[in-house]
Amino acid sequence: MKDIAKLARTLREVVGAGHVLDAEAIAERDPGYCPDNLRASLLVRPADTGEVSAACRAIAGAGRPIVPHGGLTGLVEGAATEAGDVIVSLERMTRIEDVDAIAGTMTVEAGATLDSVQRAAGGHGLMFGLDIGSRGSCTIGGNIATNAGGARVLRYGMMRDNVLGVEAVLADGQVLSAMNRLEKNNAGYDLKHLFIGSEGTLGLVTRAVLRLRQAPASERTALVFLADFEAVVGLFALLGRELAANLVAFEVMWPEYYALTVSQAGYGEPPLAVADGLYGVVEAFGWGHEDIGGRFEGVLETALNEGLVADAVIAKSEAERGKIWRCREDADAVERTHGRGWSYDVGLAIPDIGSYVAETRAAVERFPDLACYFYGHLGDGNLHISIGFADHDPATRRAVERIVYAPIARLGGSVSAEHGIGLEKKPYLAYSRTASEIALMRRLKAALDPHGVFNPGKVV
Amino acid sequence: MKDIAKLARTLREVVGAGHVLDAEAIAERDPGYCPDNLRASLLVRPADTGEVSAACRAIAGAGRPIVPHGGLTGLVEGAATEAGDVIVSLERMTRIEDVDAIAGTMTVEAGATLDSVQRAAGGHGLMFGLDIGSRGSCTIGGNIATNAGGARVLRYGMMRDNVLGVEAVLADGQVLSAMNRLEKNNAGYDLKHLFIGSEGTLGLVTRAVLRLRQAPASERTALVFLADFEAVVGLFALLGRELAANLVAFEVMWPEYYALTVSQAGYGEPPLAVADGLYGVVEAFGWGHEDIGGRFEGVLETALNEGLVADAVIAKSEAERGKIWRCREDADAVERTHGRGWSYDVGLAIPDIGSYVAETRAAVERFPDLACYFYGHLGDGNLHISIGFADHDPATRRAVERIVYAPIARLGGSVSAEHGIGLEKKPYLAYSRTASEIALMRRLKAALDPHGVFNPGKVV
Repeated sequence: MKDIAKLARTLREVVGAGHVLDAEAIAERDPGYCPDNLRASLLVRPADTGEVSAACRAIAGAGRPIVPHGGLTGLVEGAATEAGDVIVSLERMTRIEDVDAIAGTMTVEAGATLDSVQRAAGGHGLMFGLDIGSRGSCTIGGNIATNAGGARVLRYGMMRDNVLGVEAVLADGQVLSAMNRLEKNNAGYDLKHLFIGSEGTLGLVTRAVLRLRQAPASERTALVFLADFEAVVGLFALLGRELAANLVAFEVMWPEYYALTVSQAGYGEPPLAVADGLYGVVEAFGWGHEDIGGRFEGVLETALNEGLVADAVIAKSEAERGKIWRCREDADAVERTHGRGWSYDVGLAIPDIGSYVAETRAAVERFPDLACYFYGHLGDGNLHISIGFADHDPATRRAVERIVYAPIARLGGSVSAEHGIGLEKKPYLAYSRTASEIALMRRLKAALDPHGVFNPGKVV
Repeated sequence: MKDIAKLARTLREVVGAGHVLDAEAIAERDPGYCPDNLRASLLVRPADTGEVSAACRAIAGAGRPIVPHGGLTGLVEGAATEAGDVIVSLERMTRIEDVDAIAGTMTVEAGATLDSVQRAAGGHGLMFGLDIGSRGSCTIGGNIATNAGGARVLRYGMMRDNVLGVEAVLADGQVLSAMNRLEKNNAGYDLKHLFIGSEGTLGLVTRAVLRLRQAPASERTALVFLADFEAVVGLFALLGRELAANLVAFEVMWPEYYALTVSQAGYGEPPLAVADGLYGVVEAFGWGHEDIGGRFEGVLETALNEGLVADAVIAKSEAERGKIWRCREDADAVERTHGRGWSYDVGLAIPDIGSYVAETRAAVERFPDLACYFYGHLGDGNLHISIGFADHDPATRRAVERIVYAPIARLGGSVSAEHGIGLEKKPYLAYSRTASEIALMRRLKAALDPHGVFNPGKVV
């Protein structure tokens, strides 16, 4: 405890007295957040990269682990702490430093929320490609650390595809400045990719250059009802063929999930009635003078005529569009209904998903206390599974994880399509990565963070 | 020499007697290729990954450097050798192993040519996104090693964006198998990015999983004539706004380059007359039932009416399209005309390119024996400069490189937008990368290849 007090004094000199919280202050401030895990000794709130660097040097020098915190919206215990850890929170580093509307770039501090970045881009008539449900809380630093995905990956890729440059503090406190602003730069290794998706284990991202996109001039969103998974595959193929780069989102909900979220949305009438089939959210953008409306309606009409789609409703206003998206994005409905939940995020070849859901559902239904929901970014082969329950039982949890993950290795899938590994999925990493990959991940970790300072125990 | 003879015997046991060439056989076989540099002791041609691994182990064990060879179309001495080096050529590993038309993936050996990959994708009604002029000779392994760019980066990104997984032999001979086939896979670090663009210095790529794309249903190509660089910037903004994701290529040639290539193309009449202005190649794709023709003609008409474009010709046949692309792609015309040439490949913010060309041209024109040509992938901020000359003079070359590169650091540009660093651009790496980046590149090299076995001396 003495060394913690000494470290706290040093850190107060670095970031100012008001920005170093002790264990008690952390617990008071965040009573609702992850109570099992938030047992850190200190939380530091640096104001800039220099303070992050100095803080990291001091913490590493004191032999304490550093756990970076962004918006705390992650789902894999990637920000979990142990007693004795020191949290470095980027909550004061939220500046949008610069928007270059001609080049289509934005320079930000890593604590800026996704939402604030989207709004700043919109203010210049542009947009930011990434969009996820937690946009109001999640931060750019967290999006980079986890290589976030979301609902528009089909068109704009993952976070990796929306970042041009990064600045990061390394384990020895040195600042890596890789703030590239160019679309193409093959001068040596492209180092940003080391930090994107490595969940704060190789360095702490402090700033970034983001790639902005042209805002759409027209948008169309539809909710469609499909009889079975075969129709889903057929519809996605048709939409891909006809809408191609205009197709922005293709999301699917299995009926239990749609019934749950629509019943909690505070709607009057749901956009489509609850029935035993699948629900898809389709969104397309048009640019310039091209109005996407005609093509969008045309392809949905074809889908209805071909029997791929059994029913469909196209949003006629921003409010109707919001209603459709709310029923897709309100995954919290599971925990609100059942008390608690486990969430999974698997990647599979699209044709495998239908039978995977059927088998997983049948196996989970054998546990009478569990309720099982399926939904996800189907166009990316990314399925989410939320399992709600009232009581926590470690043995049941392990049994469920075996059910969810066992087919993944056989099918060449991923135990984490977009959420990352954190602590939670670490036992299953070898289901999706070869021994040679895991060995090389460890070698990189040892090369960049030989003393295991950053987010120890996570990922590998 | 004794140890070379011993190593040759070992390698013959690995790959078969016919596939180990000694220095004399190498020189006989490749009399035209890079005569200053091709001074290797041995050239090995493995048949599969196992043989690459065993060969690398043997060569590293003998303390010899390994230089990987693909199609030898690189432009930065990335495949250059010294006496004593051992070349590992992937020329026998050219198999297209698998095309999954539903998932849109292709599995290939790294020695397959780009052209063979494009044709195999076409055979399944799909396409491969990357396209560069040397498609008939360059290999997928070389495209990965250099993160190749080319004429369609606007729409399909660079090679990095077209690779889902890689297999590579590491410096200790171990095989890294990272043959991911999924669009989204956040299970741990994304290791493929280490090998893409690191020019064979971190590992030798042996196989890859490629991402295929939907083939266009309609295409339009135009050659346009513009009065000045301001019009180029205006036209690109208009095309981006109106064609958005349908815009596939936006290439620009300065008049000396167009005059040269069109005069050597063996045309009758050139597509547009030679005059003092800029020439642009614009290409757009349409998918599904959307015919891009109407929108393409409409936006060019707008450009003519607004005075952005002074003259334009739209290709009415595949032959006319070929004529337009030939005058853009025939960069060899510079060496054919002048005997020899130096080529540069800089990245800049698009608005900076006009004045950069004017200043560079004025400075180079002070050397009476040099002829200077400008052209490139303008939509990506990527300018190529070819300088032709009859005599080689090291002092002049250094002076020209100072002219070309000095503004790059000041403008935040890149000394290599797409060609890579190799040996040739190594002295200029620090113009585009910070000291902290170069230090981290060296740390990665030391971690993955501690004895400096792979392509020593290149990049960092």
